[in-house]
Amino acid sequence: MHRIRVSVAEGVLDANDTIAAANRADFDRAGVRVVNLMSAPGAGKTSLLERALADGSRRPQAAASGRDSSAGGGAVEDGLGEVRVGVLEGDVQGSLDAERIASLHVPVTQLNTAPGFGGECHLDANMVRSALPAVPLDEIDLLIIENVGNLVCPAEFRVGEDARAMVSSVAEGEDKPLKYPLMFRACELVVINKIDLLPHLDFSLEQFLENLDRVNPRASHLLVSARTGEGVHAFAGWLASVASRETAAV
Amino acid sequence: MHRIRVSVAEGVLDANDTIAAANRADFDRAGVRVVNLMSAPGAGKTSLLERALADGSRRPQAAASGRDSSAGGGAVEDGLGEVRVGVLEGDVQGSLDAERIASLHVPVTQLNTAPGFGGECHLDANMVRSALPAVPLDEIDLLIIENVGNLVCPAEFRVGEDARAMVSSVAEGEDKPLKYPLMFRACELVVINKIDLLPHLDFSLEQFLENLDRVNPRASHLLVSARTGEGVHAFAGWLASVASRETAAV
Repeated sequence: MHRIRVSVAEGVLDANDTIAAANRADFDRAGVRVVNLMSAPGAGKTSLLERALADGSRRPQAAASGRDSSAGGGAVEDGLGEVRVGVLEGDVQGSLDAERIASLHVPVTQLNTAPGFGGECHLDANMVRSALPAVPLDEIDLLIIENVGNLVCPAEFRVGEDARAMVSSVAEGEDKPLKYPLMFRACELVVINKIDLLPHLDFSLEQFLENLDRVNPRASHLLVSARTGEGVHAFAGWLASVASRETAAV
Repeated sequence: MHRIRVSVAEGVLDANDTIAAANRADFDRAGVRVVNLMSAPGAGKTSLLERALADGSRRPQAAASGRDSSAGGGAVEDGLGEVRVGVLEGDVQGSLDAERIASLHVPVTQLNTAPGFGGECHLDANMVRSALPAVPLDEIDLLIIENVGNLVCPAEFRVGEDARAMVSSVAEGEDKPLKYPLMFRACELVVINKIDLLPHLDFSLEQFLENLDRVNPRASHLLVSARTGEGVHAFAGWLASVASRETAAV
């Protein structure tokens, strides 16, 4: 008489996590660390990356780092250093951002959610997996996944990343951590961008940081201006610190 | 012998449109016109409404209207005039915006997508329908539905509105119509907000308008600053013009 082997379909709702783990295994095999970079539309993810990739590998002229920066790690002083970066650009459609990054001679893969995925407002693990054959994992140390501009759904889908960071523009107002807490909670680093606009806004940085602390007291933050370059070197240093992480911490 | 009556389940994917039509019938019965107001997070929907509701019913001091404003209609000169406005606030969670509007003594209903709807990144017709019993339709002429901050999904779900408008902040960059064309196409009015920041940004208004024209040549636009009040009276006039529309145009 044969024993019946019962397989209980547990966690079937977590197909995304299963695929994220498969992505993760591929990244680990290739020795690639991965950052999932998120933000609202127009917060400046692409501008920040442009600036970090253009400036990041230079040595700091002086003691360059974000004023009041609480994020970091040993790598900040060297910016991106020798880290080889690749970018996966998530957009509903078009390749405007990918073209901007590609002009910096960085390997870029465009992933559009419109054609195959119904115009999704976020990347999920399966979409990222579908793009992996086009990502030169053997040639890079760090893959930056620029997610679709959206403060809600991207936070709900892990894609196999080592670290999650978000960009929040001061032009968006100081209430955003309270209105989109899941996103702010999901990230270990909050890059506060467009600080060159602070003199022209009714934005209380103190209030923003207090709100951030309420929803995610463990988050680090950096003050940057992708426009003036202030603080960008520190962001590049944070990217390098992720690239040098030994252990995976999904 | 009996004839078999065949009912083909056509358009079953359009449950949303069916419910939107039901909402619409309720609005029409009450003589209420409805605006679906959308934007990215932090573009300034609530600030704009605050300002329009506070200033809107005043007569213009001078020839107040947005510089270079192409939207309008006869009602612009009078702002909101005697129009009685109600607001339905869509948020993932919290009631920060609703509290801001309520302080202006405008009837506000808060609709959160997190508890019952799984933290949805948009409002759909069914969510709006669930909130209607709490909206005093008999006491208002115009219902403004402030959607969840998101440039992707809200554009895909009609909720029974007469008009769709969006707010686009100049701080978000001039590429937004090209990156989120569905949203820009869905709206008859694009309110270009935060124009007080123009001197401090690398933002080409001309390029933005060219991009908008590429994706939606029929859209009107208004230049406003919810902060300084510039152009807000014209926006209030547009709201009044929707309130005075005779026929429904879904």
